[in-house]
Amino acid sequence: MKKPQNAEILSVGTELLLGDVVNTDAAMVAQELARIGINLLYAGTVGDNPQRLEESLRQALERSDLVVTTGGLGPTKDDLTKETIAKVLGLPLVEHAESRRRLEEYFTASRKECSANQYKQTLLPEGCHVLPNDHGTAPGCVCIADSGKMVAMLPGPPSELAPMLKKYLVPFLQGEDTTVIYSRNIRVFGKGEGVVAEAIAPFLEGENPTAATYAAEGEMYVRVTAKAPSKEEARRLCAPVVDEICRIVGDAVYGIDVDSLEQVVVEQLLRQEKTLATAESCTGGLIAKRITDIAGSSAVFEMGAVTYSNRIKHERIQVPQELLEKYGAVSEPVARAMAEGVRRAAGSSLGIGVTGIAGPGGGSKEKPVGLVYLALSDGQQTWVTKMPGGGRIGSRTYYRNRAASTALDMVRRYLEGKLEQMKE
Amino acid sequence: MKKPQNAEILSVGTELLLGDVVNTDAAMVAQELARIGINLLYAGTVGDNPQRLEESLRQALERSDLVVTTGGLGPTKDDLTKETIAKVLGLPLVEHAESRRRLEEYFTASRKECSANQYKQTLLPEGCHVLPNDHGTAPGCVCIADSGKMVAMLPGPPSELAPMLKKYLVPFLQGEDTTVIYSRNIRVFGKGEGVVAEAIAPFLEGENPTAATYAAEGEMYVRVTAKAPSKEEARRLCAPVVDEICRIVGDAVYGIDVDSLEQVVVEQLLRQEKTLATAESCTGGLIAKRITDIAGSSAVFEMGAVTYSNRIKHERIQVPQELLEKYGAVSEPVARAMAEGVRRAAGSSLGIGVTGIAGPGGGSKEKPVGLVYLALSDGQQTWVTKMPGGGRIGSRTYYRNRAASTALDMVRRYLEGKLEQMKE
Repeated sequence: MKKPQNAEILSVGTELLLGDVVNTDAAMVAQELARIGINLLYAGTVGDNPQRLEESLRQALERSDLVVTTGGLGPTKDDLTKETIAKVLGLPLVEHAESRRRLEEYFTASRKECSANQYKQTLLPEGCHVLPNDHGTAPGCVCIADSGKMVAMLPGPPSELAPMLKKYLVPFLQGEDTTVIYSRNIRVFGKGEGVVAEAIAPFLEGENPTAATYAAEGEMYVRVTAKAPSKEEARRLCAPVVDEICRIVGDAVYGIDVDSLEQVVVEQLLRQEKTLATAESCTGGLIAKRITDIAGSSAVFEMGAVTYSNRIKHERIQVPQELLEKYGAVSEPVARAMAEGVRRAAGSSLGIGVTGIAGPGGGSKEKPVGLVYLALSDGQQTWVTKMPGGGRIGSRTYYRNRAASTALDMVRRYLEGKLEQMKE
Repeated sequence: MKKPQNAEILSVGTELLLGDVVNTDAAMVAQELARIGINLLYAGTVGDNPQRLEESLRQALERSDLVVTTGGLGPTKDDLTKETIAKVLGLPLVEHAESRRRLEEYFTASRKECSANQYKQTLLPEGCHVLPNDHGTAPGCVCIADSGKMVAMLPGPPSELAPMLKKYLVPFLQGEDTTVIYSRNIRVFGKGEGVVAEAIAPFLEGENPTAATYAAEGEMYVRVTAKAPSKEEARRLCAPVVDEICRIVGDAVYGIDVDSLEQVVVEQLLRQEKTLATAESCTGGLIAKRITDIAGSSAVFEMGAVTYSNRIKHERIQVPQELLEKYGAVSEPVARAMAEGVRRAAGSSLGIGVTGIAGPGGGSKEKPVGLVYLALSDGQQTWVTKMPGGGRIGSRTYYRNRAASTALDMVRRYLEGKLEQMKE
């Protein structure tokens, strides 16, 4: 099978046309196609309407080598993607025994009854290449038309689509194609996309490797991509550019080809055999949640305390009453006391304390929404970072995410012996 | 001007086809169109490519009364939406004096110099209805073709698009029309889309109101929508169907027109003047995080404990050593002890304890990955829910999210006096 040159996405689902759901599936598919060098020409959305789906599909097959559909594979009557595609391609739907087995296994395992309509999902276009669904009930598949054009069907729920896309569809599409597209992602926290883009401008003009900047939730990253006959060669092409970009961006680079700040922090803690405890007020468990998102974090994360009220701050992690009264819960001394207190309480190597005003309420002239104090204590010393807040008001989610990332970055910098360089 | 019956969205921007940016603009436009009863038939995305944009636009104008474009109105070379549309409609671009005045005002205000290319934005199709941009430099506009069909152009940045859409485009489109589209969303946790769809099948055939089922992350919802001359009448049409669906789906309905389980839980706790404390092992702070996502949760959520290690379970929330040794950390007795221990420690009305194996490691034959025990204690009584796990392995994220939602649902059911009905 030859790798398709260009593609288009056809998302199916009335909920998308109602705006109830943002189409993250299309972005996910687009990213993967870009990664393996398939050129995306169009992305379209239609409702659960067989006529319009059929029209769009016929048109897509005229102009593109590959059509990737998302959604409409489920058990309900208005899940019609597979049926419509089979009709357009003139393929009968036949039961896929393995999928039926997996479906029944799925329901036995989850102790739920398997309603009759579920079996609809095990009927697949004759001769298709099946894409197993490891996280749900609807398998995906790829059909190849007589014209050689391809239609790949993926389920709608992102938690099912993402793994199926990466684990099964992408390798299938790549086939024997040997040109390698190799990318390295330089993850950056604490410097904006604009600033970084300006600093590394010359590299953004590069041909092979190419470099591009992307904004991510509260952070940014630079992706360096090379095309070559072998992975080794592609890596060789990337290396000097990656090194130079890291040198230019400096400390704010927290990792290369890593998933997240929390992953870097957990791996560093494991490597240095240090443990961490957190005392969170405004972030309300978000830091603990992000650390424990990482498998294996139990070895380094023994305890997290979400100390929302003053009483709990005092009783559970021994924040002195007088500090709370004199400076208020949102203050540098209380952040320090929280970090030191939770470290003592947990008997961990490091303690983190975070207190602030996430909003929307609770702000004042002296202590505006967005003001957050973060502290890290190692028993000898305590470091504090202040996020001033005020100015343009961000959302509660924005302030919480940024505070959690800043706390994780403090740990990262501490473990790299760079925390001193942290500015207020 | 007559209100368009149907519409389609055409988003313009190569970044959307690379998957770097999720298309929230389309969702925002879709929601507003649905709200005013304009039926969205298609949503499409093309790159910054005039040929493909022109083709897509011509096609859209053939099949829809209204085409709403997003993006491509800015000052740069590859902002070509306006130019392409003017060409297709055969309209010259003429300078719009008021927009020029606003542009210069904008730059004076922000103390930036107005580069020459900025003025490109003040050229608009002759005779168009201008949509002022109160948050940026590129005005939008609506052109009406000889056929009576309409093209509305909106800028790409969500912070500029949203206000322009709501303040200027929507009122313009509504004109004198007063038909109201009114929807209610019935949120369901603990029953799958398939099962619910089957149970309420007759309603899914309805005309006015219509009813449809949608899968959301880890849950599902039913949307009931009516069209009527007035909101009151539309609401009257929905009411009996909503009631009947709620009766059929039963306990699993956690709210109508609410955002999330955590929102319902926090509001119920506030109403009943009860407080909550959480002790989390496998969910590692996710429950606390979700509760504190809700503004105002500080009044009901005093303390969360992330007790990962046995030592901390024992030292911090008094889980008896012997229970940990005899039954292991992942067991019903330990979940009970965690719920009761954290409730006592926090002095709260309710305590939640969650212990389980989120994986991917740590599973065994007796205690497979996905096994989670959840307990809720009110001081008199303690309830336990078991998630058996095993079978096909879900992701760590899946198990953690499901456990957190199940815990929140236990609180919701308790506050509604329905927890007894919870099955193991």
